[in-house]
Amino acid sequence: MVRLSTRAVQMPASPIRRLVPFADAAKARGLHVHHLNIGQPDVKTPRAMIEAYRRYDEEVLAYGPSQGLPALRDAISAYYQGAGLDVTAAEVNVTFGGSEAVQFAFGAVADPGDEILVFEPFYANYLGFAVAAGVDLVAVTQSADDGFALPSDADIEAKIGPKTKAIVFCSPGNPTGAVYSNEEMQRLGALAEKHDLVLISDEVYREFAYDGVKVTSALSLPCADARVVVVDSVSKRYSACGARVGCVLAKNPALTDAFMRMCFARLCPATVDQLAAIEAYRTPPSYFEDVVREYQARRDVLVDGLNAIEGVSTPRPAGAFYAIVTLPVEDSDHFAQWLLTDFSHEQETVMVAPATGFYSVPELGKQQARIAYVLNTEALARIVEILRAALRAYPGV
Amino acid sequence: MVRLSTRAVQMPASPIRRLVPFADAAKARGLHVHHLNIGQPDVKTPRAMIEAYRRYDEEVLAYGPSQGLPALRDAISAYYQGAGLDVTAAEVNVTFGGSEAVQFAFGAVADPGDEILVFEPFYANYLGFAVAAGVDLVAVTQSADDGFALPSDADIEAKIGPKTKAIVFCSPGNPTGAVYSNEEMQRLGALAEKHDLVLISDEVYREFAYDGVKVTSALSLPCADARVVVVDSVSKRYSACGARVGCVLAKNPALTDAFMRMCFARLCPATVDQLAAIEAYRTPPSYFEDVVREYQARRDVLVDGLNAIEGVSTPRPAGAFYAIVTLPVEDSDHFAQWLLTDFSHEQETVMVAPATGFYSVPELGKQQARIAYVLNTEALARIVEILRAALRAYPGV
Repeated sequence: MVRLSTRAVQMPASPIRRLVPFADAAKARGLHVHHLNIGQPDVKTPRAMIEAYRRYDEEVLAYGPSQGLPALRDAISAYYQGAGLDVTAAEVNVTFGGSEAVQFAFGAVADPGDEILVFEPFYANYLGFAVAAGVDLVAVTQSADDGFALPSDADIEAKIGPKTKAIVFCSPGNPTGAVYSNEEMQRLGALAEKHDLVLISDEVYREFAYDGVKVTSALSLPCADARVVVVDSVSKRYSACGARVGCVLAKNPALTDAFMRMCFARLCPATVDQLAAIEAYRTPPSYFEDVVREYQARRDVLVDGLNAIEGVSTPRPAGAFYAIVTLPVEDSDHFAQWLLTDFSHEQETVMVAPATGFYSVPELGKQQARIAYVLNTEALARIVEILRAALRAYPGV
Repeated sequence: MVRLSTRAVQMPASPIRRLVPFADAAKARGLHVHHLNIGQPDVKTPRAMIEAYRRYDEEVLAYGPSQGLPALRDAISAYYQGAGLDVTAAEVNVTFGGSEAVQFAFGAVADPGDEILVFEPFYANYLGFAVAAGVDLVAVTQSADDGFALPSDADIEAKIGPKTKAIVFCSPGNPTGAVYSNEEMQRLGALAEKHDLVLISDEVYREFAYDGVKVTSALSLPCADARVVVVDSVSKRYSACGARVGCVLAKNPALTDAFMRMCFARLCPATVDQLAAIEAYRTPPSYFEDVVREYQARRDVLVDGLNAIEGVSTPRPAGAFYAIVTLPVEDSDHFAQWLLTDFSHEQETVMVAPATGFYSVPELGKQQARIAYVLNTEALARIVEILRAALRAYPGV
């Protein structure tokens, strides 16, 4: 009988997927389910992107260059130059979303059995990509108590060993919403230098920072030329998750060359999506002003509302559009399921992501859930009321 | 100093890429370069696909389901049912082209250090995917002398060891054009049963068979329910290489479940490309009649023409749109480069793919090139004349 590979057996199921049938059943019972479980923004995609699809009119939908359309690589370079970061088109390799960019980054620096450091709670799919690559993710735990700040050098160095090849992190962060300060980023750079590691910096939420907080790109670190890989994507920035266009950037030519060869193996990114992405990257920076203002307002409604519920606490995240919320429950997987199967408040309920899937040791997330504030302030105020009622009614495990 | 992973070092460069700057330089000198080096069909993409892009008009380009849009999975199932193959929508996982389908197949059955058997000359990117996965490709050599027929059971079994997990093959074949007979396919099925292996059957050229030759799908083998994975794509079938939509199929639920979890890790395929692919799969089978007739005519012009040149020989391939051509040269890499750098015939030259990249031991391909007959018969007749003149003028290494 055919046996799956060990990595296929270990490949995690989505922490959210298990709940989908329950959400579907709740909807079938007539409930309105507010989806806070996935980072799918409701912000409109720039119309110029949509028009790019509508303009497509070739006779043969042909292969493009493996590293991406030159006009897209140029547009990405121009976007970075506009953000004060010196990235040339040659340093850009276009990928299938940020997902493939992470896969390329892991594959370029780590062999099977090697280790990559991550700060937990972490973006759950890092684990899937590590398992697929045969690489071990080693987690340093962050705490809600200090708003999921970067752990101390001592805590980080305690996890660095001879097999450690890289540190992967996301700032502004999914799922924490934390934005690493310039000092924290400089510390990461110094640690990478000291231990000869690559920094894999997931910067897909770069524009999503609130209260005037400044986001430091790893590309601005002194070690950027040698040991920084940036993962990026149009998905969140331009509310275009379905375009699946991202890129992996490195200024170290050995890394760029490795990414190029990885690009060649899978031929090319999708042609028309890239044409749309060119338009996305031409979106003026002013586009983000309204978007950021809106998300900041949403964050405040959610965070203020949740912190006013007895037993509930969440730091006020400075970026992205997620909050890790500590709940007065013993088992957030059970609570999230119960919300869908046994609870309703005036014919409504909510779907949240239990935080167990964002930790290397699921127990660490047992009292937490990730909430994506991708709905408008009115809906979020309502959702706070629903959660308040739910926590009052919840009988526990 | 940062070191690349071993797999990144080993990741092969494209066998063709090295020649691209020489082709560009030839064009800059005013030469017309006939591209026979890549399987980019010149056949028109079904207009309904193009219209699907042009019709796209959502406000938010959102994530789709990880396994693919339900309507696409249904359309793929219907296409297979129409081809007499029992595939349900639940057995379809939509991928980024056939490329991701191969990656998923390798990852699901083999761990780092495991082996997958392949018949050489093989599709060069199998090697890239194996290197990325840390898997060893073990090649059984096929010969031009018998038209690249499946090797004998004894030759295949000589390469099967305790680490062998699967056999990957492509029929109709890239780069050989060979179509395995039903008897050959049954032999593969029996070998898989005997040695408890998975058959990874790359069937992206299914419709491209000539002279009335019938293509046997691995899905029709007795072992299909347990141990067959089919890799498929819209790229060649619908001349839509730039859509990057493929799928991986398995009837064994353990495999399908593994593919689903792999799909979840990278979120979803591109939304609009899938809408276009739905239209592609609805293309009536009659679409292929003209296409197949055209390719058969092209093949005959190319094969008859080449075999009439002294010292040149190629089997008459029964499928796909490639021919492995044995040339009277000592080093096909040198010859292919020379065609671009030092030769022209009435201001024209040709670009071919040296066959060295299609073998595990490059020396095996030193006297061969792969020619993709993706140009019309008039151009191919002209190309035969150019190659004849080139071989007369070629001074050798």
